[in-house]
Amino acid sequence: MPAGELMYPPEEEKKIKEAEDEEGWVWTQIKTESRSDAEAEPALASYLYSTILSHSSLERSLSFHLGNKLCSSTLLSTLLYDLFLNAFSSDPSIRSATVADLRAARVRDPACVSFSHCLLNYKGFLACQAHRVAHKLWTQSRRPLALALHSRIADVFAVDIHPAARIGKGVLFDHATGVVVGETAVIGNNVSILHHVTLGGTGKVGGDRHPKIGDGVLIGAGATILGNVKIGEGAKIGAGSVVLIDVPPRTTAVGNPARLVGGKERPAKHEDVPGESMDHTSFISEWSDYII
Amino acid sequence: MPAGELMYPPEEEKKIKEAEDEEGWVWTQIKTESRSDAEAEPALASYLYSTILSHSSLERSLSFHLGNKLCSSTLLSTLLYDLFLNAFSSDPSIRSATVADLRAARVRDPACVSFSHCLLNYKGFLACQAHRVAHKLWTQSRRPLALALHSRIADVFAVDIHPAARIGKGVLFDHATGVVVGETAVIGNNVSILHHVTLGGTGKVGGDRHPKIGDGVLIGAGATILGNVKIGEGAKIGAGSVVLIDVPPRTTAVGNPARLVGGKERPAKHEDVPGESMDHTSFISEWSDYII
Amino acid sequence: MPAGELMYPPEEEKKIKEAEDEEGWVWTQIKTESRSDAEAEPALASYLYSTILSHSSLERSLSFHLGNKLCSSTLLSTLLYDLFLNAFSSDPSIRSATVADLRAARVRDPACVSFSHCLLNYKGFLACQAHRVAHKLWTQSRRPLALALHSRIADVFAVDIHPAARIGKGVLFDHATGVVVGETAVIGNNVSILHHVTLGGTGKVGGDRHPKIGDGVLIGAGATILGNVKIGEGAKIGAGSVVLIDVPPRTTAVGNPARLVGGKERPAKHEDVPGESMDHTSFISEWSDYII
Amino acid sequence: MPAGELMYPPEEEKKIKEAEDEEGWVWTQIKTESRSDAEAEPALASYLYSTILSHSSLERSLSFHLGNKLCSSTLLSTLLYDLFLNAFSSDPSIRSATVADLRAARVRDPACVSFSHCLLNYKGFLACQAHRVAHKLWTQSRRPLALALHSRIADVFAVDIHPAARIGKGVLFDHATGVVVGETAVIGNNVSILHHVTLGGTGKVGGDRHPKIGDGVLIGAGATILGNVKIGEGAKIGAGSVVLIDVPPRTTAVGNPARLVGGKERPAKHEDVPGESMDHTSFISEWSDYII
Amino acid sequence: MPAGELMYPPEEEKKIKEAEDEEGWVWTQIKTESRSDAEAEPALASYLYSTILSHSSLERSLSFHLGNKLCSSTLLSTLLYDLFLNAFSSDPSIRSATVADLRAARVRDPACVSFSHCLLNYKGFLACQAHRVAHKLWTQSRRPLALALHSRIADVFAVDIHPAARIGKGVLFDHATGVVVGETAVIGNNVSILHHVTLGGTGKVGGDRHPKIGDGVLIGAGATILGNVKIGEGAKIGAGSVVLIDVPPRTTAVGNPARLVGGKERPAKHEDVPGESMDHTSFISEWSDYII
Amino acid sequence: MPAGELMYPPEEEKKIKEAEDEEGWVWTQIKTESRSDAEAEPALASYLYSTILSHSSLERSLSFHLGNKLCSSTLLSTLLYDLFLNAFSSDPSIRSATVADLRAARVRDPACVSFSHCLLNYKGFLACQAHRVAHKLWTQSRRPLALALHSRIADVFAVDIHPAARIGKGVLFDHATGVVVGETAVIGNNVSILHHVTLGGTGKVGGDRHPKIGDGVLIGAGATILGNVKIGEGAKIGAGSVVLIDVPPRTTAVGNPARLVGGKERPAKHEDVPGESMDHTSFISEWSDYII
Repeated sequence: MPAGELMYPPEEEKKIKEAEDEEGWVWTQIKTESRSDAEAEPALASYLYSTILSHSSLERSLSFHLGNKLCSSTLLSTLLYDLFLNAFSSDPSIRSATVADLRAARVRDPACVSFSHCLLNYKGFLACQAHRVAHKLWTQSRRPLALALHSRIADVFAVDIHPAARIGKGVLFDHATGVVVGETAVIGNNVSILHHVTLGGTGKVGGDRHPKIGDGVLIGAGATILGNVKIGEGAKIGAGSVVLIDVPPRTTAVGNPARLVGGKERPAKHEDVPGESMDHTSFISEWSDYII
Repeated sequence: MPAGELMYPPEEEKKIKEAEDEEGWVWTQIKTESRSDAEAEPALASYLYSTILSHSSLERSLSFHLGNKLCSSTLLSTLLYDLFLNAFSSDPSIRSATVADLRAARVRDPACVSFSHCLLNYKGFLACQAHRVAHKLWTQSRRPLALALHSRIADVFAVDIHPAARIGKGVLFDHATGVVVGETAVIGNNVSILHHVTLGGTGKVGGDRHPKIGDGVLIGAGATILGNVKIGEGAKIGAGSVVLIDVPPRTTAVGNPARLVGGKERPAKHEDVPGESMDHTSFISEWSDYII
Repeated sequence: MPAGELMYPPEEEKKIKEAEDEEGWVWTQIKTESRSDAEAEPALASYLYSTILSHSSLERSLSFHLGNKLCSSTLLSTLLYDLFLNAFSSDPSIRSATVADLRAARVRDPACVSFSHCLLNYKGFLACQAHRVAHKLWTQSRRPLALALHSRIADVFAVDIHPAARIGKGVLFDHATGVVVGETAVIGNNVSILHHVTLGGTGKVGGDRHPKIGDGVLIGAGATILGNVKIGEGAKIGAGSVVLIDVPPRTTAVGNPARLVGGKERPAKHEDVPGESMDHTSFISEWSDYII
Repeated sequence: MPAGELMYPPEEEKKIKEAEDEEGWVWTQIKTESRSDAEAEPALASYLYSTILSHSSLERSLSFHLGNKLCSSTLLSTLLYDLFLNAFSSDPSIRSATVADLRAARVRDPACVSFSHCLLNYKGFLACQAHRVAHKLWTQSRRPLALALHSRIADVFAVDIHPAARIGKGVLFDHATGVVVGETAVIGNNVSILHHVTLGGTGKVGGDRHPKIGDGVLIGAGATILGNVKIGEGAKIGAGSVVLIDVPPRTTAVGNPARLVGGKERPAKHEDVPGESMDHTSFISEWSDYII
Repeated sequence: MPAGELMYPPEEEKKIKEAEDEEGWVWTQIKTESRSDAEAEPALASYLYSTILSHSSLERSLSFHLGNKLCSSTLLSTLLYDLFLNAFSSDPSIRSATVADLRAARVRDPACVSFSHCLLNYKGFLACQAHRVAHKLWTQSRRPLALALHSRIADVFAVDIHPAARIGKGVLFDHATGVVVGETAVIGNNVSILHHVTLGGTGKVGGDRHPKIGDGVLIGAGATILGNVKIGEGAKIGAGSVVLIDVPPRTTAVGNPARLVGGKERPAKHEDVPGESMDHTSFISEWSDYII
Repeated sequence: MPAGELMYPPEEEKKIKEAEDEEGWVWTQIKTESRSDAEAEPALASYLYSTILSHSSLERSLSFHLGNKLCSSTLLSTLLYDLFLNAFSSDPSIRSATVADLRAARVRDPACVSFSHCLLNYKGFLACQAHRVAHKLWTQSRRPLALALHSRIADVFAVDIHPAARIGKGVLFDHATGVVVGETAVIGNNVSILHHVTLGGTGKVGGDRHPKIGDGVLIGAGATILGNVKIGEGAKIGAGSVVLIDVPPRTTAVGNPARLVGGKERPAKHEDVPGESMDHTSFISEWSDYII
């Protein structure tokens, strides 16, 4: 990128520099992990070299990996590789979100043994990064291409995020199969969303019709949230819940239909950030209806 | 098709003629949309030409697209293409159902921006059309082939519809991931079914053991309907509901276990056709138990 | 395998012999079925010869089929074929589990028309056999390879079973799309698990944090079981249930939150083994809350 | 083909009928041979079913085989299959040439053990049939498509026949690698051409500039014939010869530069048809210069 | 490329500017030709968009095309695409040679109907451009990669040019199948080489052992030139000739063993540049030995 | 291989042991070379791991490489891999011929920089090893499979060796493109054959009709040898020669028609073994006719 083309104010410059440092550090970790894995397991070395060790940067590795995962006989890997590489290279904000997502999986998911494990194998992570590129295309009014990419993500990963949906940083889609996120949905930072979660709309009229998920929210497996409702920051939605109206910040909604733990009038409020603590079940004792 | 091979009564002839006109009109729309997209987005033009613009009819385009999506290293695209093309060409009723399904997506789903968007990208639409061919094979006693096709649809789209299941026209499988429809299930016309919906059986004995879904029904995301139960025409099943017994026409069943909105004795009846209006949540105010 | 390399005690020898006889019998059935299908349906004959009829044993056929299903542009079919063949050949206990799983599908699922139908088309069966190999790699401390295989299974079949999870014999994953089984989960023998079932963890700390499923359990579609809870042998979990605490043997838990049918104090106990009888709905009459 | 669309005079009708009978007979032979091979060799059965036994006619089998051989990541097999099938189906003269070529290989090449062997494995046969379709496209002014097909044939088979070149029936390209036939070349009926043969032009100006090969000619391996020269019917060109001027009918030209066996004034004339007898070396005794 | 990174002297700058103008002009021609072909032939439009019309420059189009032609299951297209794009982008001298080669084909080969025809379909052109990249890798001491690329070119195009061989600009490899160029061979500018031509070595000792071909030379089909011999500028080698010693400039050598036309002592000298005039046969009248 | 299955006499045992040592030594070299290349060139490391470094033996590496090179959409790599591995594993004589061929390339071809270079990149070497397997199938009366393999070798490498042809050890097919070897040809040990060489037949009657090549023969590029003629041991055939009758041992035949260097009566005899010395041109001074 030729000097002078982009002029950021000093503060912005500093943040970009930090993000690049962060990205560089994570990329170094990933290379170290992969090199060690390749040495221990020759049967996997070819895979590790082609996906990670032959690349000079995280954005190239990820572009290669997504291009090869999402390609089809009618959408070639070289086309997709170019598309991804161009998006990641030109947009530092996507790259820093990618790094934050890698960190989120590494910190919050005890089954995530390394950054490279997440980069290579987590369909939620991969679907989310591909979505970030589809979203960028959408905002650039390249909608048919964004929708074609969306379709490939939905086919390959069974993760269906409309390219118009806005997603923050440090988001963990754990397991991810079956996640559906609608066109006008918004997901904040540091949110954790389990598999089979729906952020859906209602009716056949367009407009703002999907949920808005605040920062730090945790949404349990199979939860369904419908309509333009607001899930307050730090709220927790129990697995299998069906939520049709707003949920206040730092409260817990569970059940079908969902109820607030502690009651509608004086709901119990928690201090931790469930999207980060990943505590799915601590409300059991308070949940009077639970009667097995 | 040589004259004289098929002789329909005049009324039937007229209906076929209308269906062909309809099909022709939709196909013209699809070509116009794609041509415009190809001009605006050269990166997608190759894809649009190979899937749509190089073909002389909707049935050829769809056969090509499904053949390339569903093929594998052991079931080649040319074989599948032939299979699909033969089925679509020889059966006008499948073609008119396809057109009705395209219209259903276009009219009912506000995120569906064009017919070509649905034709290319909607896994529910594509799975359903492939199922229509698998079903035809099943009725022709070509069961091993029908089941092999079924398996490919389940792998590629994560949509699992038994080839024996009967599906009407104008059906929308929205998002579609995770849908399971059992062997003896029947789905009427103008039904809308969201993702993760199960129309399942019970027990290990064969026979008629799956749900019967009336015309105009709307089944919300994640709903599970089990056994040979009848969902009356125009009924609505709330997201995440578990339904094990019959639901009367034009009523709404919600929850796990599902209850009728308004109560079992005098359930609220709605006038609209939910399968077409796609209204998922209007029952909230009436749902006294909902207590967030 | 050179004589003398493995010395089993006589009892063990006898069991191995019986398992081999069993395996041989099932393989003969599969060949007979496929030959008959190939004759009746020339369009499928190529597929049947490549996947079944050209192979000399069930383990070769299955290795070929899995290798071709799970391969990608960066994990070649020849590598996977070798990996599977080596695992199946060297471990009789995996082979006997495979045969028991084939029998389970054939006996319990009325839609399963033949052994070959299950072998070729059941994504639950195929995902489970591939998991058995991934699990073996995990126990051999070949974890990066086990996780890469896990990732392919999750992408291709939308079945996400952590390679560390332990699974018994005669297990049926019916439909299977969306199943998630966590790292420390254990599944007993003769269990039947429907699609969208989650055996999940809670919290972000490692350790033993996933469910333990006893022998003969039946878990209905969409059920979510979270945490290190114990589902007693022969218990039944209703479709869509959310289970967060232990369920006693031979009882039925249903609903969200799940309740024991018959009440917590004196729950109804059934005699049959639900994982084998596949009876999903007989509890309806006893389920007083069910009020449609 | 609807009656009345094509009206041939009675004589023509009879010839077409005979050609169809011939085609039917050869196709029956091919199926019988393949069925026997498939039974004897299970490892090849899948290949034989996909290429031959699953098809209902020679033209479908050949279209499938060529489509799969000549496809690339940017020219899909389904597109080529359609192209070939359409050309073979609509043009009986191509089909009768194909049958004559099959017969030529079977009769003239002692290494050709069966019709199916030629159909599946002879690159000269396959390149020639694909050329016949490219030539048809060329005459229909679909030149870019003809040239793209030409390029695929040259890449895959290393046989480079310009789509404008005219080729008769009953032509054998034996071994075929390296054959080059220029734009204005003409090859008669019952010609046999070995590998590395060039029918080339000279100069950089267009127009009629390539050889004309009479009926029944035999051209030995590596012979180079340049310019708009005429090789008389039944002539023989020795292996490795370089021919730059006309060769009279039923004479033999050998050497570099080529000389007529027997001398320019009174060349030896043979009675047999070398293109059919495949006698490459009988001139040795007459070839006075030959002095090893 | 950031300003200042490369500083050329003014003369050099001017030449680069002219080369870029030339490249831009040719690229514009290619796009115009392809757009016209795509409109006339929808069946080819997908191919033309993916290979040419979706790209922003000749180097991207060529990198894409070569990457997809030369890839294999173990050398992925994305890797090759990157490799080619990097080489073409960073080396203006390769790009100007490419443009000169395109012009050479267009001007000298009457069968070359357009630049895009050559770019897409000429295996000699494509092999030569891929060789230019392999040669660059060789000079950068990336020899194993250069040799792997060499091997792919030899497999796919049947053109075998050692990556160490040096090739000038404006070179036409016509038809190209079977060309072999050894390690220490040098080919000048504006040379035309037909198919099956060998520039070979002798002996098993390394060192400078292959032919040196002067500017403007024409080498006819099947000619074999062996050893470190010098073919003088503007010389012509007849088809099928075997040349083992030097050939003086602007003379013609023909036959096996090759003789100079006109005799060794006073060979006929021509005025034109055979590598550009492509006159293969004008020496016939002078070639006294030619006696058909 | 179970002990006792094969019992060799002691002498044979010793030779097998030596061959295994030789094979082990070469395999160690190949691994060392590849490891060094992989370290120096990360872009190639994936390729080197998948083809060589992930394998436990030369036969596995070669089977993998050939399986992936020769596979097609109708002959899958897993099938071919199995076929090759089975042949190489069960037949030590093939393996020792493979090792001798590797050595031949390494010693005789100055452009061959390492064993791994030959193993990965030499189409002549790879075609020859695949032929050895096809030949074994032929001798086992698995002729349709042998011919299918033959066809793949001819398509992929442009090397056309009839599966019935017998080939000795330590054979070098240099460059190899265009080589044709007929059904009843026999090639001795330590022979070197350049590209475009034909060992062809004559006539259309079967029987013994192809050349017999003695030990240590060198056949230059483009030479054509036709009929059941005998090329004596240690003879040399000049490039581009056409040989139709026997050539005595240790003599040199050149030209078209071929003449013995030194004259038919008292031909010059050389002491070296041309097939090993690779001296293509030392006869020039003696070749009186050569008059450039």
